[in-house]
Amino acid sequence: MHDGTVYLVGAGPGDPELLTVKARKLLDEADAVLHDRLADERIVDSCSETAEVVSVGKRPGPNGERTTQEEINRMMVCKAREGKDVVRLKGGDPTVFGRGGEEAEHLAAAGIDFEVVPGITSAVAAPGVAGIPVTHREHASSVTVVTGHEDPTKPESALDWDALAANVRAGGTLVVLMGVGRLPDYVAALRAGGVAEETPVAMVENATRESEFTVTGTLETIVERRDDVGIEPPAVTVVGDVVAVRDRVAEFLQGAPSVDFSPAPETVASDKGVE
Amino acid sequence: MHDGTVYLVGAGPGDPELLTVKARKLLDEADAVLHDRLADERIVDSCSETAEVVSVGKRPGPNGERTTQEEINRMMVCKAREGKDVVRLKGGDPTVFGRGGEEAEHLAAAGIDFEVVPGITSAVAAPGVAGIPVTHREHASSVTVVTGHEDPTKPESALDWDALAANVRAGGTLVVLMGVGRLPDYVAALRAGGVAEETPVAMVENATRESEFTVTGTLETIVERRDDVGIEPPAVTVVGDVVAVRDRVAEFLQGAPSVDFSPAPETVASDKGVE
Repeated sequence: MHDGTVYLVGAGPGDPELLTVKARKLLDEADAVLHDRLADERIVDSCSETAEVVSVGKRPGPNGERTTQEEINRMMVCKAREGKDVVRLKGGDPTVFGRGGEEAEHLAAAGIDFEVVPGITSAVAAPGVAGIPVTHREHASSVTVVTGHEDPTKPESALDWDALAANVRAGGTLVVLMGVGRLPDYVAALRAGGVAEETPVAMVENATRESEFTVTGTLETIVERRDDVGIEPPAVTVVGDVVAVRDRVAEFLQGAPSVDFSPAPETVASDKGVE
Repeated sequence: MHDGTVYLVGAGPGDPELLTVKARKLLDEADAVLHDRLADERIVDSCSETAEVVSVGKRPGPNGERTTQEEINRMMVCKAREGKDVVRLKGGDPTVFGRGGEEAEHLAAAGIDFEVVPGITSAVAAPGVAGIPVTHREHASSVTVVTGHEDPTKPESALDWDALAANVRAGGTLVVLMGVGRLPDYVAALRAGGVAEETPVAMVENATRESEFTVTGTLETIVERRDDVGIEPPAVTVVGDVVAVRDRVAEFLQGAPSVDFSPAPETVASDKGVE
């Protein structure tokens, strides 16, 4: 028996229609699907009826245990050695903070064939569907993506917040994934790095899902706005002048079921067309 | 008659199977499709037979003229006012150096409803399918995307190359789109910014197409390798330690029709399985 192939597949930001045609086909044909918590449940429910579907989301179990990365690695290899074609389904893109690289290294070390099937990353899609282009000829010549999981106040932080702040000061856009809880910390780090407090900031919760919701503010006001509105994970934070584009286009923006809960006073009128 | 809606749609990096399900559906149903030069021709050829399909790629015409952004804006509005649903199809994602933001602003100013339909950006997908994850827990906590169209030696460059270099020194990945021609300029800018010359660099040409081709080197060697191999646009350049992941996984990486033309000597063996 030949070993199966493992497909490291991005499920995109949530909307099942933002799966790629290739991902859709692989889910219809897979022998086994190992999926993350961030992969939308409508997508998980749409897998082939004959596929073995396993949730390997890293949630605490009844005794506080989690599916460890080691177990996920082991399962991928086991199932492939049983001759199964395995879809390893991840929210967004498998290589953007998705451990796709680590899993690829594990598979290669075990001698298992694999393929990377890119997905729509919410780092680009969440701002995009909310009317915020991550780059813009007049406002942003670069975009940097980080996660907010790390504590920027710790000296061992892998991120150089002064360099990130310098990029924002130079007109770059900063996108923070998984950054609801630590918002005050990285807002402080950016301000300490010299980013102006009037710099626009948006948070897009549940992008491309029915419950999509966007709140905008500035580096000075966004923590308060997050608290007023009650933004919860998963949400994407965008820092930079491109956020202001949303105010100019929101009236005619379709497909975004969100409204700003607390728009800046002068933009109230522009939100009325959004539903 | 009601005005139509304009869909700003990402066509992804090339492979028609990397279209989203939503983009596929919109192309099947559109009344008109205005497409860029970077949208793959197999995708353009697959549009609805009843759709009016117009190339608005910014190539020089017989007298050196181009389809200007103003003409594209005008066409989108005209066709929508004729009651047509228009797909504005762009390579990659419409908001990553795709002028999607500008077009959205123009449509909103003209009172035309529009929707943003994200696509797979080659900034993530090109490295990904070549076995290079743009982030990695051990190697890269951030990824920054810029274009190489701008001359970094000009004082009016919108990019702060010292800040970009600081991010790379801190372990961030740098992705340069459209950066074949100016490679020597931004390599020099990064070295001037203190990035070590042994930092790994890859260039992925025609990612996800049959002619996909990857070359790897270091900041010191990549210009020579580009010239040896004859890398041509479109190609994506990746700078950072994540490039080294490719060497560890290439033997088992499927779906990437590329081989390194000039791999580092110690990695020759690991390339034999790639076809």
